[in-house]
Amino acid sequence: MTLGMNERWSTSEKQVARRAFDAARGREYKQLLSQTRQMADAMQEPSDLWRLHDFLTETRREIDEKYDYRYSVLIVVFARLIHEGWLSLEELEGLSEEKLAEVEQILELARQ
Amino acid sequence: MTLGMNERWSTSEKQVARRAFDAARGREYKQLLSQTRQMADAMQEPSDLWRLHDFLTETRREIDEKYDYRYSVLIVVFARLIHEGWLSLEELEGLSEEKLAEVEQILELARQ
Repeated sequence: MTLGMNERWSTSEKQVARRAFDAARGREYKQLLSQTRQMADAMQEPSDLWRLHDFLTETRREIDEKYDYRYSVLIVVFARLIHEGWLSLEELEGLSEEKLAEVEQILELARQ
Repeated sequence: MTLGMNERWSTSEKQVARRAFDAARGREYKQLLSQTRQMADAMQEPSDLWRLHDFLTETRREIDEKYDYRYSVLIVVFARLIHEGWLSLEELEGLSEEKLAEVEQILELARQ
């Protein structure tokens, strides 16, 4: 499996990719904002403040690492987003058969 | 001014110091919890999430640095806490005249 590292992305594929990427990120951020507000509202002790800080530190690191829009890694990024529930395979319609097949192969692996 | 670095602390002075220190820290944490909840409730955008994270990172660093209970630095710590409004000079009653005079001298300097 080549993981699409050297594949070309057409203009229309780039549009599909950008839209899917932004949609997934928007959903994850929305959920994060809500979770963070809930954690903040539930804080009672000084230690809760630093628990919130640790959570945001870890989340920020994870988000920065996950939402990598380089075309060389985008197929793996999409598979991860689908696996984590932030994206559906249907939102990638418009990508080449080869790219979609790669996403599905990675998802198969992830499910095992 | 020697800043009390080499002064002795009696048992009763240590009790006064501990109580004052904990009271100031308790007040500052209470205010911080409230401010953090407000920031979290007002978040609208992804960038607000990282603004909150930056705020907590900076605050944590500041709190860790500020609340230093070593007797060699405690006089300066108390002056700072009074200067910032977390403690009143009256709460240090029971410390030696010399220590109180030092706190007041530092406060004088800070006000200039």
